[in-house]
Amino acid sequence: MKKDKISSAVIRRLPRYYRYLNDLHHNGTVRVSSEALARSMGLTASQIRQDLSCFGGFGQQGYGYNVDRLRREVADILGMNNRHTIIILGAGNLGRALIENFSFRSSGFRLTAAFDVDPVLVGTRLGGVPVYHIDMLRDYLKEHAVNVAVLTVPASVAKETAASLMSCGIEGIWNFTNVELPRDEHEDVKIENVHFADSLLTLSYMLSEEKV
Amino acid sequence: MKKDKISSAVIRRLPRYYRYLNDLHHNGTVRVSSEALARSMGLTASQIRQDLSCFGGFGQQGYGYNVDRLRREVADILGMNNRHTIIILGAGNLGRALIENFSFRSSGFRLTAAFDVDPVLVGTRLGGVPVYHIDMLRDYLKEHAVNVAVLTVPASVAKETAASLMSCGIEGIWNFTNVELPRDEHEDVKIENVHFADSLLTLSYMLSEEKV
Repeated sequence: MKKDKISSAVIRRLPRYYRYLNDLHHNGTVRVSSEALARSMGLTASQIRQDLSCFGGFGQQGYGYNVDRLRREVADILGMNNRHTIIILGAGNLGRALIENFSFRSSGFRLTAAFDVDPVLVGTRLGGVPVYHIDMLRDYLKEHAVNVAVLTVPASVAKETAASLMSCGIEGIWNFTNVELPRDEHEDVKIENVHFADSLLTLSYMLSEEKV
Repeated sequence: MKKDKISSAVIRRLPRYYRYLNDLHHNGTVRVSSEALARSMGLTASQIRQDLSCFGGFGQQGYGYNVDRLRREVADILGMNNRHTIIILGAGNLGRALIENFSFRSSGFRLTAAFDVDPVLVGTRLGGVPVYHIDMLRDYLKEHAVNVAVLTVPASVAKETAASLMSCGIEGIWNFTNVELPRDEHEDVKIENVHFADSLLTLSYMLSEEKV
């Protein structure tokens, strides 16, 4: 597997492939043609064949793809078997929505702790996860092997919180703050930004299209 | 402007262009070269020139782009001046996070009402927005010109809620439920799905990359 050969456009589509393949698998589907996968995903069959060939996809003429094998292959490429441990900073509405409703486990992440400053929350558990005061962050990270953090703190403290995480050796940040996080001397930290506005503006575009 | 000539890959990048151009504008930047824009966005200058040329970008040799003109042009293509009116269904943690912290107005949407079943919430206001019982939805939509809805209800009621919205003439749904929404006879309804897992899996991929 030569991961470095996979283009960023294909990488962006991989989680969607995983989602569709996982659904098929859980519905008991054993094999799928590139045409059927294309129809359900709104892509073309040739694009699917091309994408999957990037990582040695297992399609066979006249048979299609073995759903479970392809699903596990995609999961492996996505690093879903790497046992990441994740904490969440900021247990406000969005943080709580993720803690209580998002399945970190399904993406291969183990959520072990939440941090906040709210005295009402600190010391409690949300969705089974203990909430600590943010002042405990450094000590917690010294004592626990955590490699990823979700950032759902207010924008006003996003940069300082991220700097603190990076100085403690965090490898990845899932950033919901809409604030550009400077990496400074921690160039190797991976940051995935979630911008809700980008998604809503895509909908806005689609709505304007129909009126052309 | 021939919108139908713009590829879906370019469309997906448009909100990001808007975000960067808007930041530049608010920082007082009057013009920007494709090289500088490329550096800050992590794209190549030639990709930017190619993208922007799709909608008659205003770059000039030796001058670059007029930030405000390009920003307004992108906003227009994205339909940000179309005065969409939006309601939100489901005022749980995620719904509340959007109501209280997301600026619908900055994306050209006016949020006018929230709907929920929780008796503690119904009749109150969240972030200045009135919360009605979901049973009031049809009447509300009859009396108000609403064209878009945010779906942050539990997955178990996602399909029925979406069907109800569509039968009331809603044109677009911003769907956070992770449930595939069938359009049935409402094929023209635009749906933008937000899948948090896709984003987290992208981070997972980036984390596995560095270990190759």
